[in-house]
Amino acid sequence: MSDQQLSPRARRGGAREAKRAARLASAAVSVPFITRNIPYYEVLGEEGLSLIEHNADTVLEEIGIVFHGDEEALKVWREAGADVDGERVRYPRGMCRAIIQKNAPKEYVQYARNPQRNVVMGGKNTVFAPAYGPPFVRDLDKGRRYGTIEDFRNFVKLAYASPHLHHSGGTVCEPVDLPVNKRHFDMVYAHMRYSDKPFMGSVTHPLRAQDTVDMAKVLFGDNYIDATTGRPRTVITSLINANSPLTFDATMLGALKVYARNNQACLVTPFILAGAMAPVTVAGACTVTLAEALAGLAFVQLLNPGAPVIFGSFASSLSMQSGAPTFGTPEPALVLYTMAAIARRLGVPFRSGGALCASKLADAQAAYESANTMIPTCLAGANFVLHTAGWLEGGLAMGYEKFVMDADQAGMMHTMLAGVDLSENGQALDAIREVGPGKHFLGCAHTQANFEAAFYRSPLADNNSVEQWEAEGSQDMAQRANAICKKMLREYEPPPIDPAVDEALIDFMTRRKASFPDSNV
Amino acid sequence: MSDQQLSPRARRGGAREAKRAARLASAAVSVPFITRNIPYYEVLGEEGLSLIEHNADTVLEEIGIVFHGDEEALKVWREAGADVDGERVRYPRGMCRAIIQKNAPKEYVQYARNPQRNVVMGGKNTVFAPAYGPPFVRDLDKGRRYGTIEDFRNFVKLAYASPHLHHSGGTVCEPVDLPVNKRHFDMVYAHMRYSDKPFMGSVTHPLRAQDTVDMAKVLFGDNYIDATTGRPRTVITSLINANSPLTFDATMLGALKVYARNNQACLVTPFILAGAMAPVTVAGACTVTLAEALAGLAFVQLLNPGAPVIFGSFASSLSMQSGAPTFGTPEPALVLYTMAAIARRLGVPFRSGGALCASKLADAQAAYESANTMIPTCLAGANFVLHTAGWLEGGLAMGYEKFVMDADQAGMMHTMLAGVDLSENGQALDAIREVGPGKHFLGCAHTQANFEAAFYRSPLADNNSVEQWEAEGSQDMAQRANAICKKMLREYEPPPIDPAVDEALIDFMTRRKASFPDSNV
Repeated sequence: MSDQQLSPRARRGGAREAKRAARLASAAVSVPFITRNIPYYEVLGEEGLSLIEHNADTVLEEIGIVFHGDEEALKVWREAGADVDGERVRYPRGMCRAIIQKNAPKEYVQYARNPQRNVVMGGKNTVFAPAYGPPFVRDLDKGRRYGTIEDFRNFVKLAYASPHLHHSGGTVCEPVDLPVNKRHFDMVYAHMRYSDKPFMGSVTHPLRAQDTVDMAKVLFGDNYIDATTGRPRTVITSLINANSPLTFDATMLGALKVYARNNQACLVTPFILAGAMAPVTVAGACTVTLAEALAGLAFVQLLNPGAPVIFGSFASSLSMQSGAPTFGTPEPALVLYTMAAIARRLGVPFRSGGALCASKLADAQAAYESANTMIPTCLAGANFVLHTAGWLEGGLAMGYEKFVMDADQAGMMHTMLAGVDLSENGQALDAIREVGPGKHFLGCAHTQANFEAAFYRSPLADNNSVEQWEAEGSQDMAQRANAICKKMLREYEPPPIDPAVDEALIDFMTRRKASFPDSNV
Repeated sequence: MSDQQLSPRARRGGAREAKRAARLASAAVSVPFITRNIPYYEVLGEEGLSLIEHNADTVLEEIGIVFHGDEEALKVWREAGADVDGERVRYPRGMCRAIIQKNAPKEYVQYARNPQRNVVMGGKNTVFAPAYGPPFVRDLDKGRRYGTIEDFRNFVKLAYASPHLHHSGGTVCEPVDLPVNKRHFDMVYAHMRYSDKPFMGSVTHPLRAQDTVDMAKVLFGDNYIDATTGRPRTVITSLINANSPLTFDATMLGALKVYARNNQACLVTPFILAGAMAPVTVAGACTVTLAEALAGLAFVQLLNPGAPVIFGSFASSLSMQSGAPTFGTPEPALVLYTMAAIARRLGVPFRSGGALCASKLADAQAAYESANTMIPTCLAGANFVLHTAGWLEGGLAMGYEKFVMDADQAGMMHTMLAGVDLSENGQALDAIREVGPGKHFLGCAHTQANFEAAFYRSPLADNNSVEQWEAEGSQDMAQRANAICKKMLREYEPPPIDPAVDEALIDFMTRRKASFPDSNV
């Protein structure tokens, strides 16, 4: 990768966008992704991590993984030397790990149409993306309702306008006003047209995955193929959820195969509600997660050695009274710290966490739970953070106010991950000498010189006196977020796009949509 | 210390209290304090920590610390070999550290009147206490108003009834309905009478510190003196804030001297709003904090070698626009991780953090900011956590609902700090074998056996479907907390106390109150 691809992005779009960005986070430097400067936090040492790796190998060896409804997958495994019994595939100890470590890239570049927004997945990097998948949306004005393509576009625009989100995400909400078998066109187009950040592709059918790849070829044109390698550049990262426990189904395998063969990234994610798809214990949930991920990641490497992958872990606990998933509780944080360490040992990029919560609205529950997930996400070292912004109600709803609030928290994570400045200016000994005992630092030269960039500035936190806060209407954070969200949408300006490319994309969609009837299956 | 003092507490108070505790946190085991089973998180390595230690020594050597209005303190320093110039005291490099490391205990027991609630400060232990100091209180019913002794008693009762708070704290709110020079009697009495957890003493005047000690002697009776050592047991921990930067004032020094000489614990805390009392940088704030703490802790050891101390750090950032303190931002978290590591290297118990926030009410801002402080507090390894519950509005208000919400989060921290169970039951391989691919774990034997204790259960989080949540009134977390708070106060039953001791305490207060006129100075 060239220096240019990794260089901090120079903001584009002129004075108006620059001013907006300045208002939103004046002290923050916009970067295309975060490169951490603080250590990882790990809860388990060598012994504990080895034990879970050993147990996952036991699961793969004794119990195996079901590849359901996909003869080709079974053939691939048979040829690779796995023990295929019906749809059940069992593995010699260490087989999957060896395939992954021999072939999978430790990190990869996901290219954006604006090269200044390219992201590097893996290593010490962290990439924030919006929440994924909610069929409902919620705001303070209209409450909760089904998502539409207008909502979808709004969230793409909000992510584009958020300086601390690096990725446009995928299904930012389900546009249920469009037919199931054609909505992927409008979703993918929205990411391409209303943002220039990297994005995710459709996984609900192999043909929809292929449509995503075909549209990406139109969008990237001559840049789609890397001239030096002759291979497609990775311009899509897509979410392949396992059908946990220990099962991959035909739909996900179909999408996986399309992306893998086109050198597009597969984010293979065991989806574990501990107590339902795995044992109720942290170690048990980690074991199932690792076994599934090893099989899924190795499968990608067998299909197309060297294809980019991310090791995903979505883990939550359950209310054992009601069976409802719970979020922001301590057990999933322990899973997160453990799985991130295990992914590092495996040597592949890792995805987990986000601003997860069970709350129905952007209240204190939502915030506690989201922070209780996001901080572990960042300290553990997740490389790709789906669900960074907007998630409500266990993922059933995308919140407008929650989105803006979470994006602010993502800004704080930038500062945290940057760590402690130990330069002479950071040490500030001269300032301490200048001020001395009993005086204050507000006016000293060092404070004046560092004033602008001294602290992360939240556009949403109210730090004023109670009197001023009351004079301004006694608003809670959600109400302030509502106003900022509307302002962001009002002031949104789309990134420039070559009109010929735009026309070609629209033409492609129009032709494809006309070629088969609408369906909601 | 005996095993008995450290053993997990067997809950007392009979079936009713047991049932209430069970309702509040049925899966949690009540313990008198937490002993962590996960690693510390440190942001700086040896090089960075040494640099800050070196710089703090430079500050002590070149700039020094002012001991204001206390001739005795200056005499103590002169005799110890420091360079005393007026009220300014300068130190040879390493002098304060050497005094502390030679004399200060690495950990100490703070005795409670109920020995099952004794806490061990230091080491791998964490002790949670309520917020300290707010002149105002707030709830959903009556909004914000000045605190009264009734509010004070309510918060003592709430802390007593909260299974995840280990300590009764000190000024849980200011009872402004009582005269300034006598309110300490009623405050200390409330902790003694309405709780049996350990508590803090008055620091606003040396005589009030002495009154606290005298009341403790009445309360503990024959148990006040440790028969084996002949010294007073440590039954009070009190908050001695530095007058940052680099200054200790006569009031705090006066209280410090009373407690230190009576073998009661001094929590010496530099109070740093970075940008005001220290440079705007993390490393600068850490340097000032360490320099002040070294001087304060060494002073205690000179007064009474071996007297228990805690190294405190209260650090926050400022809004550089308005000068208002800000909370839950990333910079104070970096200070926290750094100072905890430095305190461990010094070898004394450490206090920092809590559920800090600038929000005026128990909304999402309050929760994000509180979690952004509490998680670092726990991961860093703070031993004593003042402000664990109730803090609002930068410490100006104590919130009833916020208290209950924060106490729930404290419960989550218990589970997090317990770490990952790697026992055979924790590994749960047999459960994975039993269930196999594509099935669910809800009914399996392992889940049934671990059902009760599987996950931390929040009494406040709503994890139900949106339909059920709406049917129950669409309440946010603060509204649910309001109901739980009222229920806790309604069902509160005081811990038993020897009527003769109670009478003696009341008699002591009555005589002392009558011996001098009321004053609000």
